[in-house]
Amino acid sequence: MATQFDPPSGTRDLLAAEVDQREYVFGVIRSVFTRYGFEPLQTPAFERLDVLLGKYGEDADKLVFKILRRGEHEASGEADLALRYDHTVPLARVAAAYGSRLPTPYKRYALGPVWRAERPGRDRYREFVQCDLDTLGSESPLADSEALCAHHDAVAELGIGEFRVLLNSRQVLAGLLDAFGVPADLGAGVLITLDKLDKLSPEAVTAELGQRGLDPDKAAELVDTMTAPDAVARIRDTLKQSDEGSVGLDEVDRVLSLVTPQLPPGRIAFTPRLVRGLSYYTGPIWEVVAPGVAGSLGGGGRYDHLIEQLGGPDVPATGTSLGIERILTLLPGREGARPARLDVAVTVMAEEFAAASFGFAAAARAVGLRASVYLGASRKLGRQLRWASDQGARWCLIYGGEEDAAGTVTVRDLRSGEQAAVGAGEIGSYLARAAAADD
Amino acid sequence: MATQFDPPSGTRDLLAAEVDQREYVFGVIRSVFTRYGFEPLQTPAFERLDVLLGKYGEDADKLVFKILRRGEHEASGEADLALRYDHTVPLARVAAAYGSRLPTPYKRYALGPVWRAERPGRDRYREFVQCDLDTLGSESPLADSEALCAHHDAVAELGIGEFRVLLNSRQVLAGLLDAFGVPADLGAGVLITLDKLDKLSPEAVTAELGQRGLDPDKAAELVDTMTAPDAVARIRDTLKQSDEGSVGLDEVDRVLSLVTPQLPPGRIAFTPRLVRGLSYYTGPIWEVVAPGVAGSLGGGGRYDHLIEQLGGPDVPATGTSLGIERILTLLPGREGARPARLDVAVTVMAEEFAAASFGFAAAARAVGLRASVYLGASRKLGRQLRWASDQGARWCLIYGGEEDAAGTVTVRDLRSGEQAAVGAGEIGSYLARAAAADD
Repeated sequence: MATQFDPPSGTRDLLAAEVDQREYVFGVIRSVFTRYGFEPLQTPAFERLDVLLGKYGEDADKLVFKILRRGEHEASGEADLALRYDHTVPLARVAAAYGSRLPTPYKRYALGPVWRAERPGRDRYREFVQCDLDTLGSESPLADSEALCAHHDAVAELGIGEFRVLLNSRQVLAGLLDAFGVPADLGAGVLITLDKLDKLSPEAVTAELGQRGLDPDKAAELVDTMTAPDAVARIRDTLKQSDEGSVGLDEVDRVLSLVTPQLPPGRIAFTPRLVRGLSYYTGPIWEVVAPGVAGSLGGGGRYDHLIEQLGGPDVPATGTSLGIERILTLLPGREGARPARLDVAVTVMAEEFAAASFGFAAAARAVGLRASVYLGASRKLGRQLRWASDQGARWCLIYGGEEDAAGTVTVRDLRSGEQAAVGAGEIGSYLARAAAADD
Repeated sequence: MATQFDPPSGTRDLLAAEVDQREYVFGVIRSVFTRYGFEPLQTPAFERLDVLLGKYGEDADKLVFKILRRGEHEASGEADLALRYDHTVPLARVAAAYGSRLPTPYKRYALGPVWRAERPGRDRYREFVQCDLDTLGSESPLADSEALCAHHDAVAELGIGEFRVLLNSRQVLAGLLDAFGVPADLGAGVLITLDKLDKLSPEAVTAELGQRGLDPDKAAELVDTMTAPDAVARIRDTLKQSDEGSVGLDEVDRVLSLVTPQLPPGRIAFTPRLVRGLSYYTGPIWEVVAPGVAGSLGGGGRYDHLIEQLGGPDVPATGTSLGIERILTLLPGREGARPARLDVAVTVMAEEFAAASFGFAAAARAVGLRASVYLGASRKLGRQLRWASDQGARWCLIYGGEEDAAGTVTVRDLRSGEQAAVGAGEIGSYLARAAAADD
């Protein structure tokens, strides 16, 4: 039930376990992308309104969070800024601002939240992390292949075992429409429907193509070709008959020849029905999919004129976008795990021993362990041992009157229950040895 | 000169060197805080407007970035959300929302951007990173001391050699005002002026106290006491004469007794003139200062009723806030450093060898090195060697007709200029050994 203390609709408070998991995922991704020679770029959370609006059409504009002008202008009710909607518009602005001061080609990744005022739903948020990797300034299929492989390696290193990469090309799609004589004005709609072949039955897709105005015979023939057991071979034959189709096939084969030797067998497949909705792609396109996951784990492709359309310079470009939120749902959760905030929990048995206990915690930290003193008011051992256990601590240090008199600290192993008396001056080195023995 | 491609006023685009430095700093801070048993909390970039407004007074409310309502409500010109102004209001909301499902005490840190519509200036931004560490639910001076030491350790581990921690207590300030007979209605103003003793001359401070309506003799006596060579001893004597003053002194001495043994000699000092503007502090207060740095590297203190005032539960609280942007200015910059985006730069000498080159880059990455193929159109060696050098690469791999015939790769050491012919199948292990020899 929503309360006044919930975060705004479509947003989340991320507590420790979730933050830790996210930081782990982001760390793996950064490390993979860095290994490919991509560098980070961070742009502000908001852009000037005119930079953002009108770039992706009216529907997208409606999803932009607009920021009210400030001070005396607030009463106008007008906005002058807006929250970042994606990482591509800011990239175009940065490319225009920095020009030749950026490396050529400019290989960058952006990893951070974007905001869209979509209707919130299960696994659909208004604040979510998007991770983009792009290369500006290279026309080479090597750049496409690098982006695809970096995406692949990031997903693989996160431990997602079962996934596949689907590869296609915009030119292949154009060649297909041409070969089947699909009228130009129906092309875009036909592609949108064909893209549903992984979800709908062939009959349903054929019917929808008919509703879009495609001749029923042509629709049946098209769907038949694309769903046949030897669909890829048949489509290859068909494509070879047109110039556009041949170009598309060459593009696909070039990427396959570069990428396939680097991936596990069967990981990537030419997939003629893959469309990837966004109309700005101009060359190879790909998508990463996992069994049982609706939608994709992201994808990308070549988009040679988009940066200029978005207000940047006219540079060839290719890139990929990781579906971070969906990838996170595939990773093992940590809810069940017992929290382990501390390695060493230090009791405070009396006020007069507080400074000594504080020092033992510092000694444990000095050898790299997580350690803290008990911060509550109780001076009862049982209560403090319960706290130590709640923290998931490995050891609990006890320092009361007896220990003070003997110049020792009682180190209780919370796993075995065994206790040892350790010289107060040797507590750091003792714990370091114990921790090393654990590893 | 500002252009249409600049980020919005008061915000920045962070390119690779800056992002890397920030991530390094954040990593150190996270690691120190984790060692103290603090856990991360991330809240959304925006909160509901009613959660944010009216919490820090009208002046602060004016600095809040408000987000326009969406859809049919946009035309109303009204806002319903606002960008996070600090990390404390969201903490109060989370404490209220989660209640006893949070650990007790709740020790959390928040590290992320906040947004304030201040007039931008040198080192003053509208989007800046704030890092807060707080403990909710402990009245113990151990909690204050832990926050202070964690702040100290983070600054020290970042390699900022010269800095000091100033310690005081709100009760000390109250006791001082009492001892010098400062009328209650002048108290707050007198403290604000006394806080300037590190910047203004004693005469100027005395004059300002007079302007505030304090009796000139009292003003002179107060300033005299606080600037005397034996000021701390004299103030200690003065404070002992009042109940409030004694409580304050005890508070300061308790924290000093816990903290001093853990810090380098002379690092922390009782500083009676320290005020820390914010009126919500209720106990010990501290500030981290560095020579030559205007303002502080952050600070904190106990604020026992604030969380309730901000809409959360009534819990004792203490915490510290790191001045991240100022700390960043103290760290050595990396502008002069030669960019090193790659360890291994792989040439592409002809289309027919592109797949092989792509594979050599993958082999280098497989042994943990940063590697990429040349993505440009040129097939000239000189041009590609220049690119390799621009990338800061350590090695350049060359694979042309000769190498293909011999089944080898030419590995050029870009530091020594020496070249070696390495079997194409052994390129990964060869580079791994070469990199290990470098370390």
